[in-house]
Order: sequence, then structure tokens, then C-alpha cells
Amino acid sequence: MDALARLERTIARRRNADPDASYVARLHDRGLPVIARKVGEEGVEAAVAALSGSREELVGEAADVLFHLLVLLSARDIALADVLAELDRREGVSGLDEKASRSE
Amino acid sequence: MDALARLERTIARRRNADPDASYVARLHDRGLPVIARKVGEEGVEAAVAALSGSREELVGEAADVLFHLLVLLSARDIALADVLAELDRREGVSGLDEKASRSE
Amino acid sequence: MDALARLERTIARRRNADPDASYVARLHDRGLPVIARKVGEEGVEAAVAALSGSREELVGEAADVLFHLLVLLSARDIALADVLAELDRREGVSGLDEKASRSE
Amino acid sequence: MDALARLERTIARRRNADPDASYVARLHDRGLPVIARKVGEEGVEAAVAALSGSREELVGEAADVLFHLLVLLSARDIALADVLAELDRREGVSGLDEKASRSE
Repeated sequence: MDALARLERTIARRRNADPDASYVARLHDRGLPVIARKVGEEGVEAAVAALSGSREELVGEAADVLFHLLVLLSARDIALADVLAELDRREGVSGLDEKASRSE
Repeated sequence: MDALARLERTIARRRNADPDASYVARLHDRGLPVIARKVGEEGVEAAVAALSGSREELVGEAADVLFHLLVLLSARDIALADVLAELDRREGVSGLDEKASRSE
Repeated sequence: MDALARLERTIARRRNADPDASYVARLHDRGLPVIARKVGEEGVEAAVAALSGSREELVGEAADVLFHLLVLLSARDIALADVLAELDRREGVSGLDEKASRSE
Repeated sequence: MDALARLERTIARRRNADPDASYVARLHDRGLPVIARKVGEEGVEAAVAALSGSREELVGEAADVLFHLLVLLSARDIALADVLAELDRREGVSGLDEKASRSE
């Protein structure tokens, strides 16, 4: 279950690598709007795969969402631990009420 | 770092709860298209928060992406471990080449 | 202002063309999930261009949204006129109330 | 077919109205990131409706995409005519080649 923490470290390490040699470095080199766009697009792809794709396709798209979300957090210098802490915090609140309190 | 595994168990437990008492149960009750739509929308919200929001907003949106992605995987009976295994598998491949091999 | 009607006719004509010669035919050949995914992705790209792109980039992304939305309507055999009639119908309702009546 | 031009004028007129009385004014009041987010979300909703919704649902979501796209263009002071001119310009180019020239 430490796969995400490992991936976070790998992303941090590659961030300043040669853009020609690393996809992470290339994303960082292209800038935050490109990384943000990727997260939005991968969310769409996961949604479509969930409705129309095979189990294997959804696994691949979910991995893409996680990967690009970690790149986005890294680009804004946010640790995955902070996001997991937020999820833990919400766990303490009953699901429906918590969501209600978050809705606009 | 076990927050996601804990959340996955919580989601599995709540899935068949009373929709009036649990947000997870309500999502499952409304069906896969609603859950898929949420994942797509949360991806958009994370992208916009990354470009225009505070650090705190992006943490919240990233948590929303992870939460709804886990609900979507649960709805398709896919274990988070399978997605993490896919991420691990890709780690063995050099970043840029792996992405290239995934692109259409 | 008839540009959209013209585009709708062009899309209808190309729909059954040779996929190697027409982008529209290729999209139809790949199927509804691919077309739906493109609409979602172009929405994300327009959102990101609005926040971070030049005026020219947003014009291009907005054109992409309109183009792929027309391809999607065509794929579901829905006439643009039906969507415009829905927009006209809503015009009769005061904006805020109409939106309120549409919200979940 | 002038429904979009009419809607564009209505949106321009409502833009500076009382946010309590007009949905358009309320969107403008909340700012560009909220409007951009709506365009992205409506793109997702149209994609999901195309795959899982009724004909009527897709008509409604397509209308939502067009409406919020016009609000977004208005917020960036871009005329719909400029987007339609871009679509016309592309018409002169053969579909597949044009798309190829646009791809990254």
C-alpha cells in the first residue's frame, strides 16, 4: 500500500530531470496549466472507462488519475500526506453530513 | 500512508448502508453514471483549484478526487491494490517511454 | 451565424466517409465512448485555456468544444435545432429560477 | 438558428445585473474560475449523458455546455462570432489534416 508514497518520491526526484528523459520533468517543464489539464482529462477518461471500458481499461485510467494528481500536488508543493490527512479528518464525520457541509 | 486502504474498507462497508444515512450508499444507489460523473467533475475541480485556488482548496479537491475514485473502483468491484500494482508495474519502465507506449 | 448549421451538415455528410480521409468519420468509427470522451476533454481544455491561456487559445478550445459537441449530437442522432430550442425554452424562464429548477 | 446569438446578447445584458436576480450575474460575480469550472463540469455531464442518459438528458446537457461556454466567452470578452469564424476557417481545411495540424 506504500505504492503511492514510493511514486510520490519518484516524482519529486524526476521533477528536475532532463525533460527529454523523463515524462514527469517534461510535464513540469510545460507548466502548471498543462499538468492541471492532464488531471482534468484523466478524470474524464476514468469516467468514460467506468461506463464503457473493460476492467483493465479502468485500472489503467485510475492509475493515470493517481499519477497525474501526484504530479499536480508536487507542482504546487503539497505533500500527499496532507491530502490523506484531510481524508482521515473527514472519516470522523458521518459521510452524508460531511458531504452536505462541503456542498456549495 | 494507510489512509487510502482504510478509506477503501469504509467505502466497502457503507456501500449497502441506508442511502439516507450514508453519502457512499446514496452514490451507489444513484448508480454508476452518477459516480463516474462525480469523478470527472472532481478532476475538473482539482484542475481549476490548482490554477486559481488556495493550497487548502487544492488539498480539498485532491481529497475529493481520491474519495470518488475509490467509490468508482468499488462500484466496478476493482481493488485499489490492482491500481497500485499497475502504478508499480509502470515504475519499472522509464517514465517518458512508458507514457509514449500508453499514448494513442 | 449559420456557421454551426453549416458545420452540422458537414459533420452529417462526413460521418460515413472513409475514416482514413475524415476526422469525423474516424471519430464515428472509433465509437460513442471516444466521442463522449473528446467532449469532456475539450471542456477541460476550454476551462484551463480560460484561466491560463491567451485569447487565441480560448477561441481555439471553444471551437473544439462546439465541433466535438456537434459530432456527439450527430452520433446520438440529435439535431442541433433541438438543443437550440431547449435554450430558447429556458430563455422564457428567469435565469436564476431556471437554474435552480435544474439543480439537483 | 439565431438562438445562440440571442443567448449571447441576453448574457451580455444580464452580466452586470443583480446577482440575486440573475444566474448569469451570479456566475460573473463569483468569478472566472467558477465559470471555467462550470464549462468543464458540463462537458463531463454531456459525456456521461451521451453514454448513459436519455435523448432528453443529452439535449439538456448539450444546452448547458453551450450556455456556460457563452458565459465563459463573455467573461473573457470574446465574441461568439470569433469562435464561429475559427470553425469556418477550419472548414476550408480537410478534416483529418486540420485535426492532425492541431494535435500536439
